Amino acid sequence: MIGGGGNAFIGPVHLMAALMENDIELVCGCFSRTYETSLETGKKWFLPESRIYPTYQEMIQRESELPIDERMDFVAIVTPNNFHYEQAAMALDYGFHVVVDKPMTFSLEQALQLQKKVEEAGLVLALTHTYSGYPAVKEMKKRIANGELGKLRRVYVEYTQGWLAQRIELQGGNNAGWRTDPKTSGKGGCLGDIATHAWHLCEYVTGLKVKELCSELHTFVEGRPIDDDVAAFLHLEQGVTAILSATQIAVSEENGLRIRVYGEKGGLDWQQQEPNTLYAKWLDRPTELIRMGTGFGNLSSLAHWNLRTPGGHPEGYIEAFANIYRNFAKTVRARANGEEPSPECLDFPNVYDGVRGMQFIETMYEANQNDSKWMDWIEE
Amino acid sequence: MIGGGGNAFIGPVHLMAALMENDIELVCGCFSRTYETSLETGKKWFLPESRIYPTYQEMIQRESELPIDERMDFVAIVTPNNFHYEQAAMALDYGFHVVVDKPMTFSLEQALQLQKKVEEAGLVLALTHTYSGYPAVKEMKKRIANGELGKLRRVYVEYTQGWLAQRIELQGGNNAGWRTDPKTSGKGGCLGDIATHAWHLCEYVTGLKVKELCSELHTFVEGRPIDDDVAAFLHLEQGVTAILSATQIAVSEENGLRIRVYGEKGGLDWQQQEPNTLYAKWLDRPTELIRMGTGFGNLSSLAHWNLRTPGGHPEGYIEAFANIYRNFAKTVRARANGEEPSPECLDFPNVYDGVRGMQFIETMYEANQNDSKWMDWIEE
Amino acid sequence: MIGGGGNAFIGPVHLMAALMENDIELVCGCFSRTYETSLETGKKWFLPESRIYPTYQEMIQRESELPIDERMDFVAIVTPNNFHYEQAAMALDYGFHVVVDKPMTFSLEQALQLQKKVEEAGLVLALTHTYSGYPAVKEMKKRIANGELGKLRRVYVEYTQGWLAQRIELQGGNNAGWRTDPKTSGKGGCLGDIATHAWHLCEYVTGLKVKELCSELHTFVEGRPIDDDVAAFLHLEQGVTAILSATQIAVSEENGLRIRVYGEKGGLDWQQQEPNTLYAKWLDRPTELIRMGTGFGNLSSLAHWNLRTPGGHPEGYIEAFANIYRNFAKTVRARANGEEPSPECLDFPNVYDGVRGMQFIETMYEANQNDSKWMDWIEE
Amino acid sequence: MIGGGGNAFIGPVHLMAALMENDIELVCGCFSRTYETSLETGKKWFLPESRIYPTYQEMIQRESELPIDERMDFVAIVTPNNFHYEQAAMALDYGFHVVVDKPMTFSLEQALQLQKKVEEAGLVLALTHTYSGYPAVKEMKKRIANGELGKLRRVYVEYTQGWLAQRIELQGGNNAGWRTDPKTSGKGGCLGDIATHAWHLCEYVTGLKVKELCSELHTFVEGRPIDDDVAAFLHLEQGVTAILSATQIAVSEENGLRIRVYGEKGGLDWQQQEPNTLYAKWLDRPTELIRMGTGFGNLSSLAHWNLRTPGGHPEGYIEAFANIYRNFAKTVRARANGEEPSPECLDFPNVYDGVRGMQFIETMYEANQNDSKWMDWIEE
Repeated sequence: MIGGGGNAFIGPVHLMAALMENDIELVCGCFSRTYETSLETGKKWFLPESRIYPTYQEMIQRESELPIDERMDFVAIVTPNNFHYEQAAMALDYGFHVVVDKPMTFSLEQALQLQKKVEEAGLVLALTHTYSGYPAVKEMKKRIANGELGKLRRVYVEYTQGWLAQRIELQGGNNAGWRTDPKTSGKGGCLGDIATHAWHLCEYVTGLKVKELCSELHTFVEGRPIDDDVAAFLHLEQGVTAILSATQIAVSEENGLRIRVYGEKGGLDWQQQEPNTLYAKWLDRPTELIRMGTGFGNLSSLAHWNLRTPGGHPEGYIEAFANIYRNFAKTVRARANGEEPSPECLDFPNVYDGVRGMQFIETMYEANQNDSKWMDWIEE
Repeated sequence: MIGGGGNAFIGPVHLMAALMENDIELVCGCFSRTYETSLETGKKWFLPESRIYPTYQEMIQRESELPIDERMDFVAIVTPNNFHYEQAAMALDYGFHVVVDKPMTFSLEQALQLQKKVEEAGLVLALTHTYSGYPAVKEMKKRIANGELGKLRRVYVEYTQGWLAQRIELQGGNNAGWRTDPKTSGKGGCLGDIATHAWHLCEYVTGLKVKELCSELHTFVEGRPIDDDVAAFLHLEQGVTAILSATQIAVSEENGLRIRVYGEKGGLDWQQQEPNTLYAKWLDRPTELIRMGTGFGNLSSLAHWNLRTPGGHPEGYIEAFANIYRNFAKTVRARANGEEPSPECLDFPNVYDGVRGMQFIETMYEANQNDSKWMDWIEE
Repeated sequence: MIGGGGNAFIGPVHLMAALMENDIELVCGCFSRTYETSLETGKKWFLPESRIYPTYQEMIQRESELPIDERMDFVAIVTPNNFHYEQAAMALDYGFHVVVDKPMTFSLEQALQLQKKVEEAGLVLALTHTYSGYPAVKEMKKRIANGELGKLRRVYVEYTQGWLAQRIELQGGNNAGWRTDPKTSGKGGCLGDIATHAWHLCEYVTGLKVKELCSELHTFVEGRPIDDDVAAFLHLEQGVTAILSATQIAVSEENGLRIRVYGEKGGLDWQQQEPNTLYAKWLDRPTELIRMGTGFGNLSSLAHWNLRTPGGHPEGYIEAFANIYRNFAKTVRARANGEEPSPECLDFPNVYDGVRGMQFIETMYEANQNDSKWMDWIEE
Repeated sequence: MIGGGGNAFIGPVHLMAALMENDIELVCGCFSRTYETSLETGKKWFLPESRIYPTYQEMIQRESELPIDERMDFVAIVTPNNFHYEQAAMALDYGFHVVVDKPMTFSLEQALQLQKKVEEAGLVLALTHTYSGYPAVKEMKKRIANGELGKLRRVYVEYTQGWLAQRIELQGGNNAGWRTDPKTSGKGGCLGDIATHAWHLCEYVTGLKVKELCSELHTFVEGRPIDDDVAAFLHLEQGVTAILSATQIAVSEENGLRIRVYGEKGGLDWQQQEPNTLYAKWLDRPTELIRMGTGFGNLSSLAHWNLRTPGGHPEGYIEAFANIYRNFAKTVRARANGEEPSPECLDFPNVYDGVRGMQFIETMYEANQNDSKWMDWIEE
């Protein structure tokens, strides 16, 4: 693992998610740019000092020199956006699979280069668009693919947070610093941090790509050098349209990701904060609560595959995260054994999602500065 | 009352709302263009045949000839949009106050003329933007006016319905016919029918006016000659921004009006389908459920004035409607007695809301056809 | 109307409920034991002074002397429990129908006498067990009667309030005074005030009668001379069992009436504070939200009959109350016309519910003082 | 680990919970009475064949012979109730700490013997009353202990499931078999399986012990030789009373555990299916949503200690389970290092909870057969 030391939020989540299934062990790490912090973190996690490295370069290099059954199998990158590319690139160059947090890179250019590297190396890269790991989201995707809603018409996707309603990045000691600094975060603030999740969810569940959009970026908190609020009208393939909104200044909202999809015959509604229920709406019968974990033979195998417990035993964020790790690990292991992974295993975000994510940031950013209403999706 | 005969939806609602407070009686009516239907309706409601009129012209004329303590005091107009102007204008010309359903007229031009008539006659016109009659909405308005949220930043207002997800207007026997026909409905379908409510709520609770907007109108149901789905970014005074969406094709949604307002210090969230709760969100303390009807000395007098029962006794749509009638009636009675109505009484939508509503329809309609992102609010 | 003057809560609710449907007018009243208060109240409601009476005796007497088409048709009794019997009895003796608030009388003995009077006079007595007036409750009753849940097994009915969590009856100026005084309220405090509603709902929706019970009454607030909290296990006909709880000391709870019924094939769950949704639960398919007012042809005619608006336009407490008045009025009118009222009209609580309600209070009171676990239902 | 092979539900949950924090590894196991199943399960979990044992006796014996830094540190027992005692007893005898699923033993007598063994050996026994592991439950406990609710009055605790609404134990291939057979389950069916959780939660959050109770056990499903539905009135210390209900025949309910506690000054309400919110109710201010994971400095250190992620990232059942394992592991490790564990660490259910749990089953069972209303808590 690269990153995750000290007070980091997402590093320990990666670790819990990875370990939970008894599929993956933590074998080495470079958890911080400060060796002391890294050592401290590594020891807390029971690593021998020999596998706690002062730099990620040294880690990748030296691990690659270990015997094949001792060295790490993949690298998890949980650093700020501006480091993703160089770290992932080096790992791939040395033959390691990669799990990287989103957005995949700092710039679209880097994303395209990473795609090339992955394709050439024949390695696996997983991108932690966590929310696509929820069983109910997978159920949503499957039901839409099966045509249960008929031809799609309208998507509403929103992501509301409030933790950046004040300029807390000036206080330090929190995760706001690098996220609100264009030098570490890239072009997008709220745009890169959470609007990308909303966009990804929209394309993931509908199976449709955005073709053009109309966007509006705001910076509501005075002095902040990057956007903290995003809105867009999206035009997807097949005449489907979406309204996307994401904000980090909606006071006291926590992690309010919600997606609603309506077609000619029905609708589906899911909210991340109560992730185990999917509301299904119909032309001619009452709204149903599709509950994860209950029997009734009415959940798809894709949802079942990503569930651990029976109905009423709430699964949450860490389990969604763990689904990405588990599916990634099973894919890597299957390939190592010369087998083809099942479609359920392969259903995790990969380098192509990463590239489209960077295109999304680019297009939204440009469209915001545009006087015309519509802007075409930027490919490169 | 003009209109409301047969299977009409909104006419009987007007009646129940008007009667509930023992402030208003039904004394005469022309309930349908078909005299037979009108008679039948009037008799069902215990009117003597002499006060059931074949045409609204005859009703207004003959009522005006009755002695002052026998004739009707005001006219309630519950007909399709294209009749509103001529009926309201004639009533005003004969000295009657008016209650009219929204949108106020068929065109912006008519609205401006009606405003002139109201001003010249010194009569009262109430417009039934029902949702502003809910106590929790009034509480929201009051708290925002008091600065509890600090400087406002972001408004999300949405109105989702699904009853027009199919082309049911072809079946007849429902209320979809005139609403989806530009000849009776005017320029807006969903735009005039429900987006106007959403816009009104936004201006009502914030106390701020829209200055420019970016809009997108859709017709999702094939063959329908008018929009059935609306979205807009709104720029209001003082740098406040809003996302507005309204749709009538979201399968199985009933009457999903919701408004969320976020400022620097807090947020408020209200949903029409559970209208007695207001969620208040804060920077530094837990979310509160502001419940209508409970004591705690923490509800504004404006909300209290519009409540009938203690907490936990749900008040609904008809009570919200009744608040408009009651406040209108008390205003008319106060003025008749040479008194100035209280600010609480005067808090009902009037002819100026009606004019702005028609400007909203006009601006949204034009903006949709525009290639530029932004369009200024159209005054006339 | 007898009672309802000054700050009374339930009197004005009766009035709004009665007027709403344009079926009933207020023609006379004795609103308070203090003539001045009565006059003030009557004038506020636009009654001529001649029809505002100083005593209920005078009202009944003098109204009975008016010509038949001028005098009142029925009496609504909204006084404390200890007055119900004498007032209802006199009204019946003079040939007037009666609407009376629950509990019907002060003692079981009075209730049995009233039953006799109603039967002898052939008049109609309606008892305002309001909650049985909700469309969703009627839907529940109908679905159970139709066997949709299979053989019933278990009922959970609870009613939580918090307004008596402190001894506010000592402060005056509220409705707690007579309710917590056994001289005006009768044997039951919480028992008579709200547990009776819970019990009634249980028998109403299941169509089954309680045969024996085990009860526990508590007085949690020091110094209060009557119970403020009630719990019971109920054994109903056909082996069905119920847990009933009612409390008025659950701090901050408003009017939390909820009933859940489970049978061999399904369950139904309803909560009064969000009264327009009924949750239907099934062995082999997802939970459904049965929404009042939506089409889908899946609501019973009994529910439809008691609905006023389409889905998403919330109906509430006053509409439920109005359903009792409307059905009572239609029954009276039908009988006056020599017609048999429809079963939907007749579906309102009557004198037999009133008698059973008093038996319930009696049995619960005695069972509480009993060392044995079970006590048989007391008939007289 | 003993048990957990094949289709078992709770075994894999134990494993995920144990692994998640990188504190615990799976090192050996006897997962089934059938060696083949055990082998298969062990290999799936990457154990070497040498550490997969044919019997639990052999496992305990042979592990105890390994060098101290190689052998297992503790045994997790996830077998049917009738095996718990002999397995736990042997583990303790050989010096191993124990985690055991509830109810702790088959009979009260065994429980008392186990308590003696734990005390004599000075070892740690953790009992997986999972629900006390939720952060919001811990917050509830802490706030009550701090006196925020004032003197307590009333507790409502309920646990509704529906999976045994039919006699599915006859079908095989599910977890219903041993749970509904008194030979494997003990005296209680629903009583031992879930009512014990409800009871434990009640004593855990209030810090008060049950002194006497009135109970009613039912078997609703024909032919089932054990209860499937439980109700009780509980009298706790300090005059606090509770209503407890638990059922497994409430069709379609999943895992509906809910506890509400009311005192003189406030109330708290928690539901397991949405475990990250605690509703706090007050005499004089609006209901608050206490959300796990948000800052506001208003969560107790006890809740914080058991949380992993910021607000809005739902934690669930597996995390609650993991809290018990983590606190157990930290306690064991601290003691091994000669340190005293922190109070937060020590806050997990132990052998004394296990003994009281068996007393609860015993008392409820006897009280059900009793004609008197009340029965004293049975100590042994």
